Amino acid sequence: MSAATKKATIVGGGVIGGGWVARFLLNGWDVSIFDPDPQAKRKVGEVLANARRSLPSLYDKAMPTEGKLTFHDTMAEAVAGAIWIQESVPERLDLKHKIHRQIQNHAPADAILGSSTSGFKPSELQDGALRPEQIVVAHPFNPVYLLPLVEFVPSAATPAEVTQRASDLLVSVGMKPLVVRKEIDAHIADRLLEAVWREGLWLIKDGICTTEELDDSIRYGFGLRWAQMGLFETYRIAGGEAGMKHFMAQFGPALEWPWTKLMDVPEFTDELVDLIANQSDTQSGHMSIRELEQLRDDNLVGIMRALKKSGSGAGGTINTHEATLPNPAPVDLPITVHRQVPQSWTDYNGHMNEANYLEASAQATDRFMEMIGCDAAYIAAGNSYFTVENHVRFLDEVHEGDPLIITTQVLQAEGKKMHLFHRLSGADGKLAATVETLLLHMDLNVRGTSLPSDEVARKLRDFADGHAALPIPEGAGRYVGQK
Amino acid sequence: MSAATKKATIVGGGVIGGGWVARFLLNGWDVSIFDPDPQAKRKVGEVLANARRSLPSLYDKAMPTEGKLTFHDTMAEAVAGAIWIQESVPERLDLKHKIHRQIQNHAPADAILGSSTSGFKPSELQDGALRPEQIVVAHPFNPVYLLPLVEFVPSAATPAEVTQRASDLLVSVGMKPLVVRKEIDAHIADRLLEAVWREGLWLIKDGICTTEELDDSIRYGFGLRWAQMGLFETYRIAGGEAGMKHFMAQFGPALEWPWTKLMDVPEFTDELVDLIANQSDTQSGHMSIRELEQLRDDNLVGIMRALKKSGSGAGGTINTHEATLPNPAPVDLPITVHRQVPQSWTDYNGHMNEANYLEASAQATDRFMEMIGCDAAYIAAGNSYFTVENHVRFLDEVHEGDPLIITTQVLQAEGKKMHLFHRLSGADGKLAATVETLLLHMDLNVRGTSLPSDEVARKLRDFADGHAALPIPEGAGRYVGQK
Repeated sequence: MSAATKKATIVGGGVIGGGWVARFLLNGWDVSIFDPDPQAKRKVGEVLANARRSLPSLYDKAMPTEGKLTFHDTMAEAVAGAIWIQESVPERLDLKHKIHRQIQNHAPADAILGSSTSGFKPSELQDGALRPEQIVVAHPFNPVYLLPLVEFVPSAATPAEVTQRASDLLVSVGMKPLVVRKEIDAHIADRLLEAVWREGLWLIKDGICTTEELDDSIRYGFGLRWAQMGLFETYRIAGGEAGMKHFMAQFGPALEWPWTKLMDVPEFTDELVDLIANQSDTQSGHMSIRELEQLRDDNLVGIMRALKKSGSGAGGTINTHEATLPNPAPVDLPITVHRQVPQSWTDYNGHMNEANYLEASAQATDRFMEMIGCDAAYIAAGNSYFTVENHVRFLDEVHEGDPLIITTQVLQAEGKKMHLFHRLSGADGKLAATVETLLLHMDLNVRGTSLPSDEVARKLRDFADGHAALPIPEGAGRYVGQK
Repeated sequence: MSAATKKATIVGGGVIGGGWVARFLLNGWDVSIFDPDPQAKRKVGEVLANARRSLPSLYDKAMPTEGKLTFHDTMAEAVAGAIWIQESVPERLDLKHKIHRQIQNHAPADAILGSSTSGFKPSELQDGALRPEQIVVAHPFNPVYLLPLVEFVPSAATPAEVTQRASDLLVSVGMKPLVVRKEIDAHIADRLLEAVWREGLWLIKDGICTTEELDDSIRYGFGLRWAQMGLFETYRIAGGEAGMKHFMAQFGPALEWPWTKLMDVPEFTDELVDLIANQSDTQSGHMSIRELEQLRDDNLVGIMRALKKSGSGAGGTINTHEATLPNPAPVDLPITVHRQVPQSWTDYNGHMNEANYLEASAQATDRFMEMIGCDAAYIAAGNSYFTVENHVRFLDEVHEGDPLIITTQVLQAEGKKMHLFHRLSGADGKLAATVETLLLHMDLNVRGTSLPSDEVARKLRDFADGHAALPIPEGAGRYVGQK
């Protein structure tokens, strides 16, 4: 352990404990583990493997060098020198008390002792402890290595300094500590989840829907809003220009209606309406409803486009619908792309980012490959074209919402080679860029070049023959900076 | 209206009605509107403006040509020839009955009459109607033009043919109809939302958290899971290899604990556990827990990277954390990028997509610009560099999880010109690509070329002088296909 390296101790190496291990370790901390389970090494190893393939992908910079991971047979050895000790043992108060006693017998007095408990209040955990002020709730969400949220619950016995220091440390490993103002069973998020769980059990039990249909009612709808804004900011938008009070006037009465089997509802007083409307103003009042709508929509587009890749939930719906949209009809030069420029393709210069010119032209190449029979089935059978060289000229700016049309001309088609020239035009059909691209046919099994199938070669040849009469495009065969 | 164009009538042009207008219109349908509100045109126009900037961005193909939008003073005129009529008037049963009567007096008998009601059952809407079999619940989610979910609730009086035809039409405009098996007040999603709303009101009223903190407890945590998987599939993963029964055994007892103020819980019988475990197997049993975890993680990375752009929720946490990660230290040639290749950058060929080579090299250019003082403040002040030409050589494959390092060499720095050469190396430091790029300094206010500031010019000159002794890199000054 170098002088600057921080050390965390993880007590209990299940899915949650393993997630904490990954969170600290991949952020450069040394991590020691105490868990008598003989399977602990394997289990932690599996979580770490998941974390290593995903967490660094969130960042456009390299993460710190991983710290050192050690397993220990004694608590004394495990906690020595730790500044954060995280307990993630099963949800039984007597067990947690026993483990905390063991930890406090050996741990540095100024280390934070966080419990991953879903339900217990910090005062319950502190009850009878050696140093109550050291014990807090730090409740994370699975997968701990990716999801930022930690509900950090202090009690009246917790010094403000401990809360501040713990929050800073959680932020330093990329997390979002949410300091809970008053302790309560199950904190905040799990209370919301428990309410949904209870209502969900009724719906399944009464045969209104299956588990899959219930999941669909979330992930194709409000789940996409909650991933970015949560409940109240979403409802603020629903209230429109009339604001949060209007929304509440509209939906407040539902508290009296049979819209859930869960009763014991709070009284819907003017005080409660004012409290919520004022808090909502503080939270979101710096943005107009129109600005909030556009932020929501940009986030929804970004989230749903991200889900297109896996086809999960709304991403699958888009893929299915997109397949029904017509491909551009072949004309003189085939139109291989016809689309609108999404906001997510624009950058700090206020125009389409250079990488997205290539994303669009790669799409044109994909479509052209399909047109010559190099389609998904052909690729699945072990054949494809790989790009070996590109030359891009950026001739005009393209902006959010502009139409984008790409035509594709075959410059050369010979053996393994396919040499294409894409013209990208934006608003008013003005030429925005050209992309000259050379591809080689590949055998995906040996990862080496090979000849295309007879059918692909024939279809490519047909295009090449058709285009042979066209002049070599201006800008083809050019090197960067050529006069 | 051409022979092939379908027509929808929207009755009530508020936020929900306007969303339906956009959904149909942008999918090529003609849309007629009936709404006596003198503000209806303005309101629908505002929703349409939002929809036009976002909905087409979901797709990598152009959407159909928009249909024709008309406003009508009489119901008879509005509904003539419509195959779908959607009612979105305020949530009062007597009002809905009155409007449905008006609609049915004039509408084609075989048109679908969908109500956007959040709460009423279809049998309540059908009660006393002219043609009960024509009326169904089609409950959408705001923004209707982006979110796919429609809860489609038939009653016992609804012919199966109507449900099928309506579902097909909803799918054809990119939506996800969820056919609800048994009618119930508030259908499915709004029952879940109502449960959360009730628990949320308690939390705010009791001073446990503010509206913003409650939103944060969702959007930094389980909201990110729900956007892709919903409740039960997420819990299946939490149950781990031991499965859904194990999860339920673990959290079933919470039904008896004070984890929410909402009571009237269903009895936790073996039958209920079996019912849920079996449905979960049907839903997700084709994937192992490990596969589900990796799918979840890939989706989380995609969603959170999408949120990085706006900085909303978890995206903001990543941006804050990333800013604390060290930039690569300048060495002989400056390292301008050091990162890991995310899964989202890979394509159907199983390697990094060509567009992402340029995304990474654009990042290198950005970082180099920062190093010479062309940073966010400089750009905000109205100056920047625009890329005018790129040449990319793809030399080796790069795969998910590989490290990616880019060095940047200045080939030329003269007046407005900045000519750079990026070398991208992947696993084992093997050269994976080179990107030669020419940029021109721009005055962003006039969108024309200009000279850089003295400070930027001086810093760029320092790099250029330092690199002058280096040989011209192999591959520079090359045209596509050059021998």
